[in-house]
Amino acid sequence: MTPSSWLDDFPLRMVELDRAHLRRRRAVVTPDGGARLKVDGRSMLAFCSNDYLGLSTHPDLVRAACAGAQAFGVGSGGSPLVSGHSAANEALESELAAFVGLPRALYFYAGFAANVGIVPALVGAGDAIFSDALNHACLIDGARLSRARIHRFAHADLPALERELAHSSARRKLVMTDAVFSMDGDCADIAGLLALCERHDALLLLDDAHGFGVRGPQGRGSLAEAGLFGAAASRRVLYMATLSKAAGAAGAFVAGDSALVEWLLQKTRSYIFATAAPAMLASALSASLRRIAQDEWRRTHLCRLVGRLRSGLAAGLQGSGWQLGASQTAIQPLLIGRNDAALAAMAGLRARGIWVPAIRPPTVPEGTARLRIALSAAHTEADVDQLIEALTALARESVDALAANA
Amino acid sequence: MTPSSWLDDFPLRMVELDRAHLRRRRAVVTPDGGARLKVDGRSMLAFCSNDYLGLSTHPDLVRAACAGAQAFGVGSGGSPLVSGHSAANEALESELAAFVGLPRALYFYAGFAANVGIVPALVGAGDAIFSDALNHACLIDGARLSRARIHRFAHADLPALERELAHSSARRKLVMTDAVFSMDGDCADIAGLLALCERHDALLLLDDAHGFGVRGPQGRGSLAEAGLFGAAASRRVLYMATLSKAAGAAGAFVAGDSALVEWLLQKTRSYIFATAAPAMLASALSASLRRIAQDEWRRTHLCRLVGRLRSGLAAGLQGSGWQLGASQTAIQPLLIGRNDAALAAMAGLRARGIWVPAIRPPTVPEGTARLRIALSAAHTEADVDQLIEALTALARESVDALAANA
Repeated sequence: MTPSSWLDDFPLRMVELDRAHLRRRRAVVTPDGGARLKVDGRSMLAFCSNDYLGLSTHPDLVRAACAGAQAFGVGSGGSPLVSGHSAANEALESELAAFVGLPRALYFYAGFAANVGIVPALVGAGDAIFSDALNHACLIDGARLSRARIHRFAHADLPALERELAHSSARRKLVMTDAVFSMDGDCADIAGLLALCERHDALLLLDDAHGFGVRGPQGRGSLAEAGLFGAAASRRVLYMATLSKAAGAAGAFVAGDSALVEWLLQKTRSYIFATAAPAMLASALSASLRRIAQDEWRRTHLCRLVGRLRSGLAAGLQGSGWQLGASQTAIQPLLIGRNDAALAAMAGLRARGIWVPAIRPPTVPEGTARLRIALSAAHTEADVDQLIEALTALARESVDALAANA
Repeated sequence: MTPSSWLDDFPLRMVELDRAHLRRRRAVVTPDGGARLKVDGRSMLAFCSNDYLGLSTHPDLVRAACAGAQAFGVGSGGSPLVSGHSAANEALESELAAFVGLPRALYFYAGFAANVGIVPALVGAGDAIFSDALNHACLIDGARLSRARIHRFAHADLPALERELAHSSARRKLVMTDAVFSMDGDCADIAGLLALCERHDALLLLDDAHGFGVRGPQGRGSLAEAGLFGAAASRRVLYMATLSKAAGAAGAFVAGDSALVEWLLQKTRSYIFATAAPAMLASALSASLRRIAQDEWRRTHLCRLVGRLRSGLAAGLQGSGWQLGASQTAIQPLLIGRNDAALAAMAGLRARGIWVPAIRPPTVPEGTARLRIALSAAHTEADVDQLIEALTALARESVDALAANA
């Protein structure tokens, strides 16, 4: 290979990432009981998992996964349209549809793949997409793949969205939004969005990755929370949620109007041209749905922890420049700003035996690096108190350092 | 909703699919011993699974999956860059790299998501992609997402590829190809492709979804088959394979030069912004790698079945217009042509208790609808004989029908 090959660029580009404090390092983790993880061999109290209800290690799910593997094997062997659609996956789809109160559901092996596929199946060249500025990467990639014109509106700015909708002459309009924003924890105004969609003949694609299982009666998700369930459902809404977060396993699903879901089954490239999810995951998920519906205490407890963290930190952060975002969900972002400062805060917590990964651009906008604190029903009140104490101490150190430099 | 809403189009568009014999219907399947499946409740002899070695129901894999679920739970809870990268996934990556004789591997939750993400991480606007015309949909979607200029070359036409490479002034050139083509079963000329890549400073992305586990010494895949293993590996090749086919489980991996793989870990959106694969799948896959390496008999037996099918059908298809593609792999396409004729052949086999799904456009080019016969180490010689007999009878019926119409 000649020394001028472009392949030689990669090590150099890595040095640039290091310099900008943007290099990412993976930790190797193993569950260590409750909300504890062994992180690179060391037991830590972790506030980073999206397993919001603490179900991923639940014996019911583990038992169901094993039974599924016994009955179906560990792989599906093919596309759902060839021979990969197992009886377990079929049953799960019916349960998912009933759970979220919509006519029909389609089960995907992964959430990223679902959004990357369903957006281009719905709209194409000549059509228009209206996308919240803080939407998840997979919605954005799905929009890019579709070749529809993308109108990005300021986060949660419904008047701005309405202006864009009114100016568009496209016949097919797709509005898409996270229901709970993954790095901020705030929630979309579903009723407001739906009213705009009705007025402008748009379809609303709602990504409830972080709301499913946690929000709404019995954890039925953000649509149920908004009252759009069963007879009150709107065929203007295509609901999507992942099953790798509160549901504790892996995969995703879309649900909505039967004809629309049938269309997606026919036309979604990431569904048709891919191997169906293993039945053992579907089996685990059927067990998970039962736990989600029945274990109201998990949501009550989680809600209490959110309140405890926010009131506990209210005083301690004063003067530090650190700020807790306006979230009432399990996602509690502690905004710090600079990449190196966020990494330093993460290191400070780690030194105290607490694991909260720093989130930097491009996952979040430039200048908004943060600790993304994720609470879970697996945490105890004492766990949360330990986090409050550590963050208060770190914030004080930060204030003292600022004063010393002034 | 007004009657003129674009949402009303979907049922109408479905009618068009029906009319073109392009509507797809999912069968609900359950393993039924050996190569048999219960299909919509009826036990059938199946030639449709990509589980080429018959490992998906192997007790070692099932046991390992259960042990993984016990130790790690059924979900990973987060991105591998946050807290989803389990010790089981870490171990699997080392094993995968060693297995294919490359410096480093990165384990993905799904093959479609892997290709859709790694292509845009490697090249972008101003760069050039050279793509075989029969490449899998996920490579094509990855190329579209990258915004690089796409040069599509005729299937397996290396002189055409060389002309395109020579005319391109892009500094970054990515050649991408399936190693074994999924609907035809033929194999890419890896040595020839690599020589072109060396001459034109291009990177070769090789998708070995259908070669991994089946080709090469100990099933180490198409690169090993080409002798590009260990010390003989080229850093000009980025190897990708799925783990949902011969490996019997789910997921995928990319492997190659360490700096290149590290770059992918940093920059692949479908990896960073997605939940890591469950550890129980990684555990099953570690067990699968051992079986793949040790069970030489599975490949020997499969190879014998391929020869048996091809020689057994040689006479029986004469005059029918049906033609077996020039494949020596487990994928044996029986080209029929028209969509309705392929569906009729599928129905004829089904009436005889045999399940071979018809593959139609857009999965294959217009006018090349086919039965995609997939052989597996789980088949017996008697199974293959039963298929030969049924196809011979159907081909004769087709000849008779042609004669009657003439």
